Amino acid sequence: MKYKRIPDETVRRLPVYLRGLMFLHEDGQRNISSSKLADFIGVHSWQIRKDFSYFGEFGVRGVGYEVDKLVHEIKGILRLNVVQKAALVGTGHLGTAILSYPGFGVYGFDVTAAFDNNPKKIGKKIKDVTIVNVSRIDILRKKNITLGIIAVPRSVAQETAHALVKAGVMGILNFSPCYIIVPKKVKVITIDIAGYLARMPYYTPMEQKK
Amino acid sequence: MKYKRIPDETVRRLPVYLRGLMFLHEDGQRNISSSKLADFIGVHSWQIRKDFSYFGEFGVRGVGYEVDKLVHEIKGILRLNVVQKAALVGTGHLGTAILSYPGFGVYGFDVTAAFDNNPKKIGKKIKDVTIVNVSRIDILRKKNITLGIIAVPRSVAQETAHALVKAGVMGILNFSPCYIIVPKKVKVITIDIAGYLARMPYYTPMEQKK
Repeated sequence: MKYKRIPDETVRRLPVYLRGLMFLHEDGQRNISSSKLADFIGVHSWQIRKDFSYFGEFGVRGVGYEVDKLVHEIKGILRLNVVQKAALVGTGHLGTAILSYPGFGVYGFDVTAAFDNNPKKIGKKIKDVTIVNVSRIDILRKKNITLGIIAVPRSVAQETAHALVKAGVMGILNFSPCYIIVPKKVKVITIDIAGYLARMPYYTPMEQKK
Repeated sequence: MKYKRIPDETVRRLPVYLRGLMFLHEDGQRNISSSKLADFIGVHSWQIRKDFSYFGEFGVRGVGYEVDKLVHEIKGILRLNVVQKAALVGTGHLGTAILSYPGFGVYGFDVTAAFDNNPKKIGKKIKDVTIVNVSRIDILRKKNITLGIIAVPRSVAQETAHALVKAGVMGILNFSPCYIIVPKKVKVITIDIAGYLARMPYYTPMEQKK
């Protein structure tokens, strides 16, 4: 790989930068200074400059960053310049929301497979994706899908992760509020929705102003 | 406030530590070394030690951290030691998933109000919370609710944020994949579900092993 030394924290921020830059691009903006980009996406400008320094020099003094060049570069680093297929397990409210979520396409993701264990759901379609019995999760190998999204109840999250790994999945986005154990070669990102809210009271007063 | 100089990045990680520590506590673990805690939650141990250094010294050489003391301390910093009431706007699949999400209670949150503009939904209940017409969002002021969660389509996210701010909300968790503009005194955290998946291909091979 070309960029080996990018810290995890920078990799975490790259999609945030990418999203902001894509919005700016849509709006017809061609160049932007690091301080204006910082204001727009809510990150310090020194942080942006430091993060970008890991993969080259894009800023031009007095002109700023070229928006489309940066979009292209970040997509390349994150390997989002090709369509990435993903599979969803669990088609309850959260799973359905994920399948309907307009944001995945923006990054080049296509959730093309969905699994459930509920006989009432199997065979039905959500957004053109037919729900398949989770017992057939092995088809992911034939479909060459290496990304999995877990949206099942906490009680079955671990066995779902195990099944995904057995089917060849190498990256798991876990929405169950629990830890799952996988082999070291598999990358897991756990999204704890409540955890994001948990840092809010630190920043906000607890009582309404009268 | 007692702890003024904690960096945003540390505040972002505190709920992650808190969740891990609460899990360990449930499991009956009383002490843990920073390296074991690091392994458990997937953060570098130097990062944990650095983050904890902002609010005191909790580790004891050879014994490690006292789990319940740390839980108590982090809850205090994040102001999660009292019940925090939150309001939800938008009761589609994502909103319903949020209302049903078991993780909020873990952090002391109680989503006690829900709004929608769909006449078919108004008056119905999800998990004991009655859905109220969004035109009555001003009741948040009387209920002294200062946290809002936005789970509406992108097209109405900005006007929803505006209504929440007008009703006295000081912190907004935004699930719409877009930027919203609010007065400076209001804190917004935008959760871009796809953005979390976007860093996965960086870590995982794109093709299944044959």
